Amino acid sequence: MTKPLLQIALDSLNLETALETAENVAGYVDIIEIGTILAFAEGMPAVSALRKAHPKHILVCDMKTTDGGAILAKMAFEAGADWITVSAAAHIATIGACKKVADDFGREIQIELYGNWTLDDAQSWVDLGITQAIYHRSRDAELAGVGWTEADLVKMKQLSDLGLQLSITGGIVPEDLHLFAPIKNAKAFIAGRALVGEKGKATAEAIRAEIDKYWA
Amino acid sequence: MTKPLLQIALDSLNLETALETAENVAGYVDIIEIGTILAFAEGMPAVSALRKAHPKHILVCDMKTTDGGAILAKMAFEAGADWITVSAAAHIATIGACKKVADDFGREIQIELYGNWTLDDAQSWVDLGITQAIYHRSRDAELAGVGWTEADLVKMKQLSDLGLQLSITGGIVPEDLHLFAPIKNAKAFIAGRALVGEKGKATAEAIRAEIDKYWA
Repeated sequence: MTKPLLQIALDSLNLETALETAENVAGYVDIIEIGTILAFAEGMPAVSALRKAHPKHILVCDMKTTDGGAILAKMAFEAGADWITVSAAAHIATIGACKKVADDFGREIQIELYGNWTLDDAQSWVDLGITQAIYHRSRDAELAGVGWTEADLVKMKQLSDLGLQLSITGGIVPEDLHLFAPIKNAKAFIAGRALVGEKGKATAEAIRAEIDKYWA
Repeated sequence: MTKPLLQIALDSLNLETALETAENVAGYVDIIEIGTILAFAEGMPAVSALRKAHPKHILVCDMKTTDGGAILAKMAFEAGADWITVSAAAHIATIGACKKVADDFGREIQIELYGNWTLDDAQSWVDLGITQAIYHRSRDAELAGVGWTEADLVKMKQLSDLGLQLSITGGIVPEDLHLFAPIKNAKAFIAGRALVGEKGKATAEAIRAEIDKYWA
């Protein structure tokens, strides 16, 4: 068991704001994510710019790749991403195409768990050699007031038992971290808005303190 | 029954090539799509530039929106898109958020049918007032040699019967059009590579001739 990492998701509508936010908390996070919103707003120059600004961090491009896997993966890896996300709803051929490109580049892919995925699907990802998945409340579900449930934790444990390292996201705040203590295979916690602005560093430190408490 | 439209999907890695391709076939197509690859490569400036170059065409941004629906929808509509795509794997709250923004702008959303969606899901989209869906072979499935099947046609008919207008895509070539003649509620056929370059116009005319033959 290794200690979960802390990831900031940059979901601003422009690169300038994203670079400021990243600069502010770079010393407090392990992973910097170009969120889907930022990637669609600014394109791959956003990945290149964050790579240049933060050469030592793990850089993730949250493409939620659903088709055209090889081209999208190559594009993001060439721009400097270490990992890309791939939708659980993608055809297994797409997921395989992304994995192959990732292997060629020596990078990784993460399955984003959206839609009616099954444990059989998850096994097929593991069979492809995939080691990471992202479990989350949908941002919109969160806005609609849907909280973390016992069912979420059961599914996380099942995925973890299949051998998948889980990154957990969806309005992560320090007070929620204890909920995930049973997930020993937690790869990272991903926070976005909680790490923005003046309070960002303090929140990052609070999350780290909770990580230290539950993943000793 | 109205005659299906013809849509070009622009999936080049840069805007310059996309603008050239669009210019070449603009007189032969009804709908111009900023494909996911182009949108991730160049960001929203690609939508703005194509809007400016082709003010009369229907413009679609193929975001395959999976989360953060309201922000992504607003961004694309502000850049000039008439329609955006939303993944069938998105939480119903995300789909609802996109629909609401579309209504505010007087635009439309199209559900992209990826993943293990069900007819119950489809009914829930119809219940939200959504009128369009996109049925396709995955690009990667196509590359892996997976053809159009009887099961595809059965599902298209079921969706059409629920009241959804279908856009059909996935390596569309003129010789395939007859397969879809039973789908009376066909909104558009989407082609990408087939409409690129010198042969693009001739292929567009050949697809239109097939449309005229089967949707008189």
